[in-house]
Amino acid sequence: MKNNKLAIIGMGHVGSYVLADAMKVGLFSEIVVIDQDKNIAFGEALDQAHATSLTYMTNVHVHAGDYPDLKDADVIICAAGPSIITTEDNKKPDRALLAKENGEIIREVMTGITQYTNEAIIIFITNPLDSMVYIAENEFDYPKGRIFGTGTMLDSARLRQVIAANYRVDPKSVTGYMMGEHGLTAFPVFSRLNIQGFGEKELDHYFKGKEPLDRKTFGQKVVDAAYDVLNGKGWTNAGVAQAAITLAKSVLLDERSVYPVCTTLNGQYGYHGDVALSMPCIIGRNGVEQQLEIELDHEEVTLLQQSAAYIQETMKIAKTGKSN
Amino acid sequence: MKNNKLAIIGMGHVGSYVLADAMKVGLFSEIVVIDQDKNIAFGEALDQAHATSLTYMTNVHVHAGDYPDLKDADVIICAAGPSIITTEDNKKPDRALLAKENGEIIREVMTGITQYTNEAIIIFITNPLDSMVYIAENEFDYPKGRIFGTGTMLDSARLRQVIAANYRVDPKSVTGYMMGEHGLTAFPVFSRLNIQGFGEKELDHYFKGKEPLDRKTFGQKVVDAAYDVLNGKGWTNAGVAQAAITLAKSVLLDERSVYPVCTTLNGQYGYHGDVALSMPCIIGRNGVEQQLEIELDHEEVTLLQQSAAYIQETMKIAKTGKSN
Amino acid sequence: MKNNKLAIIGMGHVGSYVLADAMKVGLFSEIVVIDQDKNIAFGEALDQAHATSLTYMTNVHVHAGDYPDLKDADVIICAAGPSIITTEDNKKPDRALLAKENGEIIREVMTGITQYTNEAIIIFITNPLDSMVYIAENEFDYPKGRIFGTGTMLDSARLRQVIAANYRVDPKSVTGYMMGEHGLTAFPVFSRLNIQGFGEKELDHYFKGKEPLDRKTFGQKVVDAAYDVLNGKGWTNAGVAQAAITLAKSVLLDERSVYPVCTTLNGQYGYHGDVALSMPCIIGRNGVEQQLEIELDHEEVTLLQQSAAYIQETMKIAKTGKSN
Amino acid sequence: MKNNKLAIIGMGHVGSYVLADAMKVGLFSEIVVIDQDKNIAFGEALDQAHATSLTYMTNVHVHAGDYPDLKDADVIICAAGPSIITTEDNKKPDRALLAKENGEIIREVMTGITQYTNEAIIIFITNPLDSMVYIAENEFDYPKGRIFGTGTMLDSARLRQVIAANYRVDPKSVTGYMMGEHGLTAFPVFSRLNIQGFGEKELDHYFKGKEPLDRKTFGQKVVDAAYDVLNGKGWTNAGVAQAAITLAKSVLLDERSVYPVCTTLNGQYGYHGDVALSMPCIIGRNGVEQQLEIELDHEEVTLLQQSAAYIQETMKIAKTGKSN
Repeated sequence: MKNNKLAIIGMGHVGSYVLADAMKVGLFSEIVVIDQDKNIAFGEALDQAHATSLTYMTNVHVHAGDYPDLKDADVIICAAGPSIITTEDNKKPDRALLAKENGEIIREVMTGITQYTNEAIIIFITNPLDSMVYIAENEFDYPKGRIFGTGTMLDSARLRQVIAANYRVDPKSVTGYMMGEHGLTAFPVFSRLNIQGFGEKELDHYFKGKEPLDRKTFGQKVVDAAYDVLNGKGWTNAGVAQAAITLAKSVLLDERSVYPVCTTLNGQYGYHGDVALSMPCIIGRNGVEQQLEIELDHEEVTLLQQSAAYIQETMKIAKTGKSN
Repeated sequence: MKNNKLAIIGMGHVGSYVLADAMKVGLFSEIVVIDQDKNIAFGEALDQAHATSLTYMTNVHVHAGDYPDLKDADVIICAAGPSIITTEDNKKPDRALLAKENGEIIREVMTGITQYTNEAIIIFITNPLDSMVYIAENEFDYPKGRIFGTGTMLDSARLRQVIAANYRVDPKSVTGYMMGEHGLTAFPVFSRLNIQGFGEKELDHYFKGKEPLDRKTFGQKVVDAAYDVLNGKGWTNAGVAQAAITLAKSVLLDERSVYPVCTTLNGQYGYHGDVALSMPCIIGRNGVEQQLEIELDHEEVTLLQQSAAYIQETMKIAKTGKSN
Repeated sequence: MKNNKLAIIGMGHVGSYVLADAMKVGLFSEIVVIDQDKNIAFGEALDQAHATSLTYMTNVHVHAGDYPDLKDADVIICAAGPSIITTEDNKKPDRALLAKENGEIIREVMTGITQYTNEAIIIFITNPLDSMVYIAENEFDYPKGRIFGTGTMLDSARLRQVIAANYRVDPKSVTGYMMGEHGLTAFPVFSRLNIQGFGEKELDHYFKGKEPLDRKTFGQKVVDAAYDVLNGKGWTNAGVAQAAITLAKSVLLDERSVYPVCTTLNGQYGYHGDVALSMPCIIGRNGVEQQLEIELDHEEVTLLQQSAAYIQETMKIAKTGKSN
Repeated sequence: MKNNKLAIIGMGHVGSYVLADAMKVGLFSEIVVIDQDKNIAFGEALDQAHATSLTYMTNVHVHAGDYPDLKDADVIICAAGPSIITTEDNKKPDRALLAKENGEIIREVMTGITQYTNEAIIIFITNPLDSMVYIAENEFDYPKGRIFGTGTMLDSARLRQVIAANYRVDPKSVTGYMMGEHGLTAFPVFSRLNIQGFGEKELDHYFKGKEPLDRKTFGQKVVDAAYDVLNGKGWTNAGVAQAAITLAKSVLLDERSVYPVCTTLNGQYGYHGDVALSMPCIIGRNGVEQQLEIELDHEEVTLLQQSAAYIQETMKIAKTGKSN
């Protein structure tokens, strides 16, 4: 009999939060925790196992494991690899080095996974996300749709929160998302943004906003939100972990929710297998059930192309380890 | 109108997990996050605020704040202070230094809190816990019962998990707890342990245990569990954070659940205001509603006295900064 | 200290489901159950009290009560009165009789409530809903905004489910609602309907719908949905009960979610205090925090006016007990 | 891929509440609703489907169905058949008639089920429960352990609530259960009852009880609780529905929780396949994983034998339709 089995690979700041959230969702019977440092995997699993004794907690069988444990996993969430690598000399984030190093890690992870399963749905969080998803999807012969990345789920959550805070409403009452790269070049799809049907041009008229909705200002606010978290606490994990679990639930229960996630494009927006980026997709038992090529306005198309170009640049680095 | 307001003081490994768990419980309208490093408080709150945009998340108003924000708090959870301090030379944990340093921090925290409220229920997690609770309860004029510590909630969760794992049952089907110090000298109350009414002496007969229930062996397993988590991941937070939130829920909803928490004894077991340790208590809207002086067997009484003596020793250090 | 106290008035098919849902939400400390048949109130409360012993249930203090118990209630949900009255001779639903009888019941209920509180947020479910809300809001001197009806929350849930079923997506991915009367003349606001930004005209192009989206056909499907439930099981309660609890949560936690609920119009759409109907509103700690007068297309304006006229007709009956 | 599929047979007062609770638990991907009146099944499923559009609801695929839909069900909950049959003349409950009629219904149901699956775990609620479970377990060749009844889960919940109310604690802090028949002859196992380790003889000393714990008085209170619900609202459903869902969760997530459920005895307490009654069992992915023959005191043994004799009497009626 089946088990509702989740595997989490990578127990850093992000993976440990994914685990914590997974324990609370009441959906998983078994969670296997994998990290190259087996002590950390063991410690995290044991700490969570202790929590299962508490009043409202589901009795999840949580334990450290390894690739063979993936054989009957339903969903695998991969948060392996460092989230930032800084240069030796001036301590700035070195994107090229990160892309190269994590590219190698993702190849290892996929090699490990594919030895034991090609049925599990694999959700990537490792950055630079879009390049990592591209590698996983295109360098391994895994069934189409069963690999995707959390992508702009987090960026979109930030967008909705920024909008919601401005108009003082529940962010769940806001419909809207970011597309493109998970990162700096992600762009808000303002043309489709709405609060229960009130569109971009109407919000300031109907709601009592703190400041007028301006694409540039609010786009910047979302970018700032990411940096504010990063500068404040040193990393971001709470939002993206919850995003991953939301996706895992949609998969396991076949909810067919529409979320912006990262996959390789196959003709959408004129890209044919040469870039992975985030766009709205239906997420169900088979992973990405459908990619939804929403029509963008002129400004947004330009932003999409810029974002795609930026991702492709990173993809090159991830391949060769060299930036231009 | 009231708000279901939680405050969390201290955003280290533990406080950040308390926050993460608090966001999921669907009970709090407002959560204020306080840390001496305001950037960290800001970053943690913002990261969690982003998560409120996701599908199943309650729209909690989570934000960084300071002591004045405690004015209308219902529950305050304090996880301030370092969890381990190591000596300079040989890098061993220095319990004396920790007691002294965190004692000062708890005095600061209590000074901050009492400027703004004497109504909130305050739940301490900071170690060495029993000494910290003693200071908070006895050096400040806060209403009796409204201060307590998570105490052996975590140690007890470990005990139940160890028992449950041996007999392969849900740890929530195990009734049992540790008493005394939160830490090394905590002891399992085996005389009261039961799996749905099956007592200590019967378990091996009725359940298919992996190994026979022996007080010494299983007491050691619980101690090992703590060290395994600590050595594995470098700290423990998942279990204790969930314990704190379970207590906060019992307070806020006046559940009157019986949990082992840490308070100053007032005649129980022969201690008159001279030690704080964990014993079963009824937890409700007024905090500790009743302390339940359960009768212990001879062996357990001895362990209680040893544990109390050990705590009193630490209390002295916390006062004077000097161990014998 | 406050209690997170809910009161439910009326323990018929609907009220008993509201109670069942309220017990599961983990938010209420106390629930008082009121029915003119005190035995039924007592039996329902006791049955639910027994369930609080089960593993994952919150220890809610649920009990039968009466109007004096409303004194410190946070939210009152009123489902009093029969849902259908049939004529003696040919057993057809008699809308006039229902309006008259339930009008009297709502007046009694409001008289009872206002003796003890004018602070609680009151959510009405009793039909014919819009007339009942009008009576409660306008014949009693209760603070503005603190009374509203579930209105087209249920009709809107049906609309989203009908759309979602056609395109095989999660209904929570659909943004859309019905406005006007809760009942036969409610109309879908197709001009604002979208699935994550994909609008009315785009759905058939991008999604694999079972049949093309046509306003008439799909409007009829929603109406049919109501009748299918009614004819199938004899009443409807599951959807509307969950709607009421969703609203109560938004109030108690001050979520400020945008939902279509029923209130008296004060200038919106040209109506000045002479009709109550459903339109999008921000729901927070003060009840209806803001009514959002969304712009409708020509067709929708006509439907709104027809619906308003129909409600006004019922309101007259509720006042005089006579239909034209 | 698997589906987390639940089937509910019988949409009366109990089955409809089982459905309502199942929709909230966030665990099921698909729920199929079966009733001999297909309209009722259709109406109930549709009403719940509408609720899936609401904010916090999981997108469960809920629909009416028939026996062929059981093919890939994980858990089947059967609440088919009337709960009371009254005699024509004096309107008293006629236990003989109920046993006979529901015996036939259970045979039909099992015939239906076994055509399509022998893997699903089947949980019975239909009364007289113990006889119904006996028929299902012993007249059909279904794998051992995969059939059981909610049994004294509800009676036990009542016991814990009665004890908890007397001592003003959370009923989840009470460990205790009833054994024997689900019904009049069920008996509390006072010898094993405890509030977090405080046993029967200690409760009045340590807790501030409203009245002293007396076996007879409190046994009667539990019996009265059942009648109070029944007389109050006309039936009982809330507690037993939640009990069934708690069991279904323990099965689906393989929690291995210990609950008192009804199965045929195979040597326990001296009964060899000639009676089904409730005793503590480990509930996991295979249904009843182990029956736990807890030692009873003299008084309790007598009560068990009386209860077994009473059940056997009913079993005879269920077979022959005639009482002595």
